[in-house]
Amino acid sequence: MKRIFEVDPWTVTSHDLNSEDKRLQESMTSLGNEYMGMRGMFEEVYSGDTHQGIYVGGVWFPDKTRVGWWKNGYPLYFGKAINALNYVKADIYVDGNQVDLAKNDVTDFEVSLDMKNGVLNRAFTVFGVTFKITRLVSAAVKELADIHYDLLSADGQAHHVRFDASIDADVVNEDSNYDEKFWQVLDAGNGTNSSFIATQTIENAFGVPQFTVVARQSFVGGEKHGVNRSEKEVTDNFDIEVPAKSSVSFEKRVIVTTSRDYDSLVQVIKAGETLTAGIAAQTYDDIYTAHAQKWAQRWEKADVQIEGDNAAQQGIRFNLFQLFSTYYGNDPRLNIGPKGFTGEKYGGATYWDTEAFAIPVYLGVADPSVTRSLLQYRFDQLDGAFHNAKEQGLKGALYPMVTFDGIESHNEWEITFEEIHRNSTIAYAIYNYTNITGDHSWLDGDGAQVLYNIARFWADRVHYSARNDKYMIHGVTGPNEYENNVNNNFYTNWMAKWVLQYSLEHYDEINADEKAKLALTDDELAKWQKIVDKMYLPEADVETKTGKKHIFVQHDTFLDKDLTPIADMPQDIRPINQNWSWDRILRSPYIKQSDTLHAMFYFPDAFTEEEKRNNFEFYEPLTVHESSLSPSVHSILAADLQMADKAVEMYERAARLDLDNYNNDTADGLHITAMTGSWLAIVQGFAGMRVRDDKLHLKPFLPKNWTKYAFRLVFRGHVLEVSIDEQGAHVDLISGESLVIDLSGQDVMLTADTLF
Amino acid sequence: MKRIFEVDPWTVTSHDLNSEDKRLQESMTSLGNEYMGMRGMFEEVYSGDTHQGIYVGGVWFPDKTRVGWWKNGYPLYFGKAINALNYVKADIYVDGNQVDLAKNDVTDFEVSLDMKNGVLNRAFTVFGVTFKITRLVSAAVKELADIHYDLLSADGQAHHVRFDASIDADVVNEDSNYDEKFWQVLDAGNGTNSSFIATQTIENAFGVPQFTVVARQSFVGGEKHGVNRSEKEVTDNFDIEVPAKSSVSFEKRVIVTTSRDYDSLVQVIKAGETLTAGIAAQTYDDIYTAHAQKWAQRWEKADVQIEGDNAAQQGIRFNLFQLFSTYYGNDPRLNIGPKGFTGEKYGGATYWDTEAFAIPVYLGVADPSVTRSLLQYRFDQLDGAFHNAKEQGLKGALYPMVTFDGIESHNEWEITFEEIHRNSTIAYAIYNYTNITGDHSWLDGDGAQVLYNIARFWADRVHYSARNDKYMIHGVTGPNEYENNVNNNFYTNWMAKWVLQYSLEHYDEINADEKAKLALTDDELAKWQKIVDKMYLPEADVETKTGKKHIFVQHDTFLDKDLTPIADMPQDIRPINQNWSWDRILRSPYIKQSDTLHAMFYFPDAFTEEEKRNNFEFYEPLTVHESSLSPSVHSILAADLQMADKAVEMYERAARLDLDNYNNDTADGLHITAMTGSWLAIVQGFAGMRVRDDKLHLKPFLPKNWTKYAFRLVFRGHVLEVSIDEQGAHVDLISGESLVIDLSGQDVMLTADTLF
Repeated sequence: MKRIFEVDPWTVTSHDLNSEDKRLQESMTSLGNEYMGMRGMFEEVYSGDTHQGIYVGGVWFPDKTRVGWWKNGYPLYFGKAINALNYVKADIYVDGNQVDLAKNDVTDFEVSLDMKNGVLNRAFTVFGVTFKITRLVSAAVKELADIHYDLLSADGQAHHVRFDASIDADVVNEDSNYDEKFWQVLDAGNGTNSSFIATQTIENAFGVPQFTVVARQSFVGGEKHGVNRSEKEVTDNFDIEVPAKSSVSFEKRVIVTTSRDYDSLVQVIKAGETLTAGIAAQTYDDIYTAHAQKWAQRWEKADVQIEGDNAAQQGIRFNLFQLFSTYYGNDPRLNIGPKGFTGEKYGGATYWDTEAFAIPVYLGVADPSVTRSLLQYRFDQLDGAFHNAKEQGLKGALYPMVTFDGIESHNEWEITFEEIHRNSTIAYAIYNYTNITGDHSWLDGDGAQVLYNIARFWADRVHYSARNDKYMIHGVTGPNEYENNVNNNFYTNWMAKWVLQYSLEHYDEINADEKAKLALTDDELAKWQKIVDKMYLPEADVETKTGKKHIFVQHDTFLDKDLTPIADMPQDIRPINQNWSWDRILRSPYIKQSDTLHAMFYFPDAFTEEEKRNNFEFYEPLTVHESSLSPSVHSILAADLQMADKAVEMYERAARLDLDNYNNDTADGLHITAMTGSWLAIVQGFAGMRVRDDKLHLKPFLPKNWTKYAFRLVFRGHVLEVSIDEQGAHVDLISGESLVIDLSGQDVMLTADTLF
Repeated sequence: MKRIFEVDPWTVTSHDLNSEDKRLQESMTSLGNEYMGMRGMFEEVYSGDTHQGIYVGGVWFPDKTRVGWWKNGYPLYFGKAINALNYVKADIYVDGNQVDLAKNDVTDFEVSLDMKNGVLNRAFTVFGVTFKITRLVSAAVKELADIHYDLLSADGQAHHVRFDASIDADVVNEDSNYDEKFWQVLDAGNGTNSSFIATQTIENAFGVPQFTVVARQSFVGGEKHGVNRSEKEVTDNFDIEVPAKSSVSFEKRVIVTTSRDYDSLVQVIKAGETLTAGIAAQTYDDIYTAHAQKWAQRWEKADVQIEGDNAAQQGIRFNLFQLFSTYYGNDPRLNIGPKGFTGEKYGGATYWDTEAFAIPVYLGVADPSVTRSLLQYRFDQLDGAFHNAKEQGLKGALYPMVTFDGIESHNEWEITFEEIHRNSTIAYAIYNYTNITGDHSWLDGDGAQVLYNIARFWADRVHYSARNDKYMIHGVTGPNEYENNVNNNFYTNWMAKWVLQYSLEHYDEINADEKAKLALTDDELAKWQKIVDKMYLPEADVETKTGKKHIFVQHDTFLDKDLTPIADMPQDIRPINQNWSWDRILRSPYIKQSDTLHAMFYFPDAFTEEEKRNNFEFYEPLTVHESSLSPSVHSILAADLQMADKAVEMYERAARLDLDNYNNDTADGLHITAMTGSWLAIVQGFAGMRVRDDKLHLKPFLPKNWTKYAFRLVFRGHVLEVSIDEQGAHVDLISGESLVIDLSGQDVMLTADTLF
């Protein structure tokens, strides 16, 4: 755990330059608007360690991958949302002295993410001038990024500032497999009012489209004295005179347009020109206000208030801020990358995290259409899922571990071939959407193609073990990626069985034309039923400190391991993924993230309390939570089991995972999809939110040290405000017709003017 | 199976150009002399598909490897014996027409490997000229390769032949991970009598030495009319006048010197000059005869004669020819690459194949010093083995899967981390050497450091399973690489136990200073004993077509698989490694090579006949033999079990694996280390050779269709000639004192003049 920012309800602020933790600082101060985003790196030259990262949603590259010994079915590339051209770059000189905070004598440094207004503020004083910089990626005009400078004499003298503002297309992706640069320059121009560069991703051998990205910069203030142009960079040079006694401002605006929205290069360039002209008449205040208003609306809908614990309050707001910066449901072609626009690793691609963690949040805070759009994204990529299954010689649809277009673009066999449990989570999301919204139309329509082809995959992927008279699933990697190629992973088997069962149960309801398209035979359906009846689910009695317990077994030979609890091991081995060889990790009993417990997180009502308790008590002491997705699941389960202290401990870890750098990897980027977990821990955990038989259930408790928490919830055309304090739980109906909910076991009728 | 060469006892001949199987033809006609070697590609331009491959023993490069998600302990590169400069190249014009057999109208084509004399002959007629070409890589002067041309008018007309002879350093390694070229040119020169190029491997980031290789060409015959020189190539241009009625000859000699033998670039170049001058006075006949005599001596010692089956005869000779071409024990710094000098894959590195398969052959056909040198090679690399274990966080020594210098240079975790059974085979080789030669001095000296540090590794690698009260080994890949990350692989566990037991048994005998160096504590030794006592070895009763059988189980969950015998599967799925996804292969029960049976191959006397039979009958029907190392083991075990037909079937597959391209991969290169298997099948299988309690045992039978077979055997200072025909077995003592052997269960005294 490492906390480099101050605790505050609405800001994330540091007064240290943190040159040793510069990358961590940059990750934490990322901005985004779904369309694009960037890490919090400085605009001006910084000669210390830094990771420049600017990304455009849906713009990716298939980075070829090769190891010596390729096997049939291995994917050929790793898909990544690549670092795009650097359009914030500025080389600044004060009276001829280059501003470089790694070298200069800096005073009054501050960096502060203002979550309420969605902007990054920075201030520092060098060479007698105080810089106050505000950066925003507009929530109102998706193509717009704006950097505003206030320059103020700090020593009572006038100063000359030279400002060389660039767009730099000479971009390095640190994780490029072959040290390739992924961008080429197609065109560039310096004009009187603006300059631009048009870039395109380089060719690839895999049929992935080449993306064109054009950035155009324009300015307010300063005096332009020239331009520079090199092969991959355009620069506009400005003189700014800072008066002795007052301040002067300067503003750089950037418009980014891409071939995702326009057909030809000419159109992409032209669109940027038009948009630039369109904002020319606007003042900075106009731009700022339009942006900040959007954020105000978001907070109005989705803010979670916590009283009595500012660290917890800051955590949930930071998480919602970064989640919304990554995805707010504006573009149906986009999904939610696990690191959003905050780093290279996981590269902005789509993972099962979306269905497992993000959809449950959007179902609670947004219109159902946002979730439906995320589901439709998977339907649109069904052909890719067919392709993936076929690559393994299997029927049906296999949704990929990592993708931009439906085709698997991860490149490790132990992930692509084996971590196939992901497929069931797509089916779970369909169930979840249908159960929470009550809208069956997607399941019965397009969703049927997704669901039943996933079921088809499972029916082909199991095998029959004659000596056990059971169906089994060998050779998988469960959610716990600290093991792989295991047999009969409880979670994988249980979920595969559930998918088949759910599919069989709903078969009569799906639309006739969907049925015709599926062309399922009676034999197929009969085999599905047989698999449901005879699926092997490993379970056993184990001895624990608190006596004998019956548990579900993570996989066939898990109990043969040396089961020393992680608490009994030396502290300095953690995180084990940074201290142990991969081999040792695989053989250890230590669990990266919830695995057997994951099914209980998805389907809390499908297991008895004793089952949940036994498994929680057995597995939790072996769990190292080195996946960002783990603590929230444990928090929710602990809350379910009335283990309030454990629930709160796990919430804190989930909520402040990045703020406190728990896993020592936030320097690489934020854990965007995991940020959903803190909302889930509050709503599903502390407030006990469930939907059973079309009715909303709440069973809240107030965490120790908190004096109050409150959140809004969208449910079937209603908006509720739930608040819990020491007096109890209150539910307000903010909008929608009257409805009955179950509050702590009692039916309660909510009407527009009722307050409970 | 694909047979493109004619069956003959002493040659491997084809009269077809085989343009579709050119690579296969090239692999099969490879030549080598341990110091260097090459594929059988044509010297002249060939515009069809071809794989140029010329290699120098011990000259390698660490080809960096990267995939997206690196884990702790993964090796950073794949070590490969890289393709060196092409010094056989010749561009030939007959009356101005370029010779290119892919395009010309060719008659009388023949390519023929003369195994008796160790040369490759080739003949063809184009543009009215018949070319007869003999190529040799000298067994007498290691640095020398010689290509001799006889040119004869085929149409009664005189012809002009232009001959541009080159050394070309612009070399491509087809398997280069990053499409890098691995060579740079340091120097080059064209002289009156000879030309040279000095090359060096490019820089690397891993501390691997850069090798300098210099090739110098000189000529006999023709009329030199010029030279060419480009950045990476030197060429000497000759005119050759072919008379109307008689023939003319031309000869190109190449001397290859390297920094492995000389310190400075100047010395490497100078040595080549000196050697070139040294052979200048020799005629081609001198060179040929000196070379052929060496081969005659080799055959005198090691030839295996088979009568009644020319295909079997050709097979064993081809295998011994290629094995000796790869390694003949001249250089203690070298080992035996699985593909020798015949292709890129497996790249001339050292594998456990040496200890498992090659050492048992060299123990039978060569002086014990050859084997001792191979053992010493491992002692010399002990530091690397310590390093490898440490990378995994383990004690002791872990010998690598692939190496040139002791450091692991394979790059797949499922191999490097998991296929650790290789470590035990190094210990087995020590036992084998000691048992067969009766020489304990290596085991008690340097060998102790190797053996006891391997034991130390195992003692740290096992874990204690409380619920079973057993020591276990999780997370391994057994010899059957068609599974990985399995638990309690019988072979791995059994061998680890054997290593610990053997180490404990011999502890009192090792030299005091070795003991001091090892510094084993009493606690360590006690723990080793405990592991020996409580090592888990999976076994079970299984139902088979021939009733219930008790077997050793390949690993914990093997019997839960769908165990359909491979014979009941469609033929078109084989080889499965070319037709199935890796995932499907891993989940299948099909075995690439002997696994459980492998222990019985190493230690035939440690298992009862019933154990051997039950396991053979259970596993053999699941075995696809897609490793070249598999058939011979099965042949030997089948012979042991008096299953003569099966033994012969498996022998044929082992002996003609490359000649008949059984696994459809010989185009990539020959299976050099597997070639030992055919000798083992004859000697340990058909002739039943064993050494028990310091006595040689033979229990021969004559395979059906064979009328006789005979071989020589080195045993403890004696040379025996064993011959078996329809009348029975005969053993001649060729040299050495009298000795008693066990022949088919009876003690027989052999004296110098006794014939049995």
